[in-house]
Amino acid sequence: MNFSHPLAGGAVARCRGLLEPALREAVSVLHPWGARMAAFALGWSDADGKPYRGDSGKGVRPAVSMLAAEAVGAGAESALPAAVAVELVHAFSLAHDDIIDHDERRRHREALWKAYGVGPALLAGDALLALAVRQVAERPEAMTWVSAALVELVQGQAADMAFENRPWHGPRQVTLAEYVEMAAGKTGGLLGAAAAAGVALGGAPELGERMWALGRDLGVAFQIVDDMLGIWGDPLVTGKPVYSDLRRDKKTFPVLAALGTGGAPARELSEMLSAGLADEESIQEAARLVEEAGGRASAQETADQYLSSALTALDECLPEATELRALCSSLVNRDN
Amino acid sequence: MNFSHPLAGGAVARCRGLLEPALREAVSVLHPWGARMAAFALGWSDADGKPYRGDSGKGVRPAVSMLAAEAVGAGAESALPAAVAVELVHAFSLAHDDIIDHDERRRHREALWKAYGVGPALLAGDALLALAVRQVAERPEAMTWVSAALVELVQGQAADMAFENRPWHGPRQVTLAEYVEMAAGKTGGLLGAAAAAGVALGGAPELGERMWALGRDLGVAFQIVDDMLGIWGDPLVTGKPVYSDLRRDKKTFPVLAALGTGGAPARELSEMLSAGLADEESIQEAARLVEEAGGRASAQETADQYLSSALTALDECLPEATELRALCSSLVNRDN
Repeated sequence: MNFSHPLAGGAVARCRGLLEPALREAVSVLHPWGARMAAFALGWSDADGKPYRGDSGKGVRPAVSMLAAEAVGAGAESALPAAVAVELVHAFSLAHDDIIDHDERRRHREALWKAYGVGPALLAGDALLALAVRQVAERPEAMTWVSAALVELVQGQAADMAFENRPWHGPRQVTLAEYVEMAAGKTGGLLGAAAAAGVALGGAPELGERMWALGRDLGVAFQIVDDMLGIWGDPLVTGKPVYSDLRRDKKTFPVLAALGTGGAPARELSEMLSAGLADEESIQEAARLVEEAGGRASAQETADQYLSSALTALDECLPEATELRALCSSLVNRDN
Repeated sequence: MNFSHPLAGGAVARCRGLLEPALREAVSVLHPWGARMAAFALGWSDADGKPYRGDSGKGVRPAVSMLAAEAVGAGAESALPAAVAVELVHAFSLAHDDIIDHDERRRHREALWKAYGVGPALLAGDALLALAVRQVAERPEAMTWVSAALVELVQGQAADMAFENRPWHGPRQVTLAEYVEMAAGKTGGLLGAAAAAGVALGGAPELGERMWALGRDLGVAFQIVDDMLGIWGDPLVTGKPVYSDLRRDKKTFPVLAALGTGGAPARELSEMLSAGLADEESIQEAARLVEEAGGRASAQETADQYLSSALTALDECLPEATELRALCSSLVNRDN
């Protein structure tokens, strides 16, 4: 991720310096075979174990935890158990989601299951999750949030999968409210846990609930932007195939918002989607119709609203948290 | 499971009466789709959601937790969070193991992935695990053991998978010590967590380490008996296809023990296994050679030793724990 705000990039890099030794230590206990898959999943090595210099993810969630701890006056290292846990949970969820969604590519290279097989990748995901839980097992003030995020994550993923079997129009079509609930769980829960566990370990557990809500709002904004990048992002920058969500009939926010406008482009789009996007031309035409119907503008507006809600909460609770604020903004204002 | 000791059967049934409402409540928060898969995985319903009257597993691990709490003078219900957690972790591990091992049958019916597909079953497993963690998230005295068991479980499963790529003879062959370490983790960790969390929640955390060790010993004995039933058990009683482990070249205790004897039947067995068991006749012949070489007797003896070690620990720590003692014995002296 390229951070739109220089303050965010610097803070994340600083947190990553603290995180990485702790993360490597957490993973070091694994069976050699599991350790190799974990190193691949965490972006430290390529599939045959050689050090990897590409994009390994920037550790945004751990940075949220550590910056939240700093914002309540503690040292970033006080949040390390939560920081390591949320990064491991994130890696677990990517490993399993790619199996579930049959996604073959992740961060410009093969998905874990593509590199090692479904069974091993599934087990490696379980191992990452087991290590995540162990990190905070003796810290109930953090564990509570991490476990809440885990439940939200699987519920959100289940909702997202269930959306696939829902029609594009009629009484059973997916509503924007259902989308928001799904994204708050699937994407927001872990951001919420990162922030809430960060303030709790930093000594301000009374801010936990507000940080949790902030993370969920931020997650909704983040997921909507993700959906937009999936349609209008540059595949060379995002590392994802162009139009992959449209190709798979995914119920993304821009498409749902476009359908909800009810005008002529929305009706045309609805008919195309219901008939199925058979070829490249129809996929491009559908993307054009989403924009023409106002789906892109509506998505941007909604993402901005959720970001604004998160930032307002932050300004009220932690007005001095300039780095955390910059990071939250960067998560929504991004091109990959 | 049919309990060889009547005291064990009665105690497990009593614990199950306490467990089931709590387990149903824990699962009730799931997305409807996840709840349906969970109900199937837990043996409450069949694949299309109708109540299921068949073998749903007897809740052995939760019973260990609750009987351990009773043995230290607390009520069985004090161990409920751990009891629910270990049962959910067990269900999670079965759901994922069947995917990893391509096992199509479980408890006389389809495996979860066979009934619902790999992606949904994977996610349902994750959901069961998330709920398990949530049960004990605010009880660090139990969470510590559950999280240790989770790490052991994935490590043991990884070791078991790695065994598959090891040769049947030569310096890289799997040793009995490696097998015991694998079984202690894969099967013993959760039994250990059940017992340790049970005494901890019952008010005697100082017994946790000994209960953990007891559970690991019991797990080794349990797993060896499982291996024996996989070769000489009645498929109608066990619910598993006959010789399935031999068919898959699995490194089970009786086979490893037979190979270790070094006599003529062991050499013949080693040659057969290295060449591959191509047909039904050679599989039957291999099973006969395992027994002739002494693998069956050695397995029984080793299982008895590990059980005896567990019972000795129990007699020292908790001499009054007659029901828990009967249950431990029944887990090893069984026909399914």
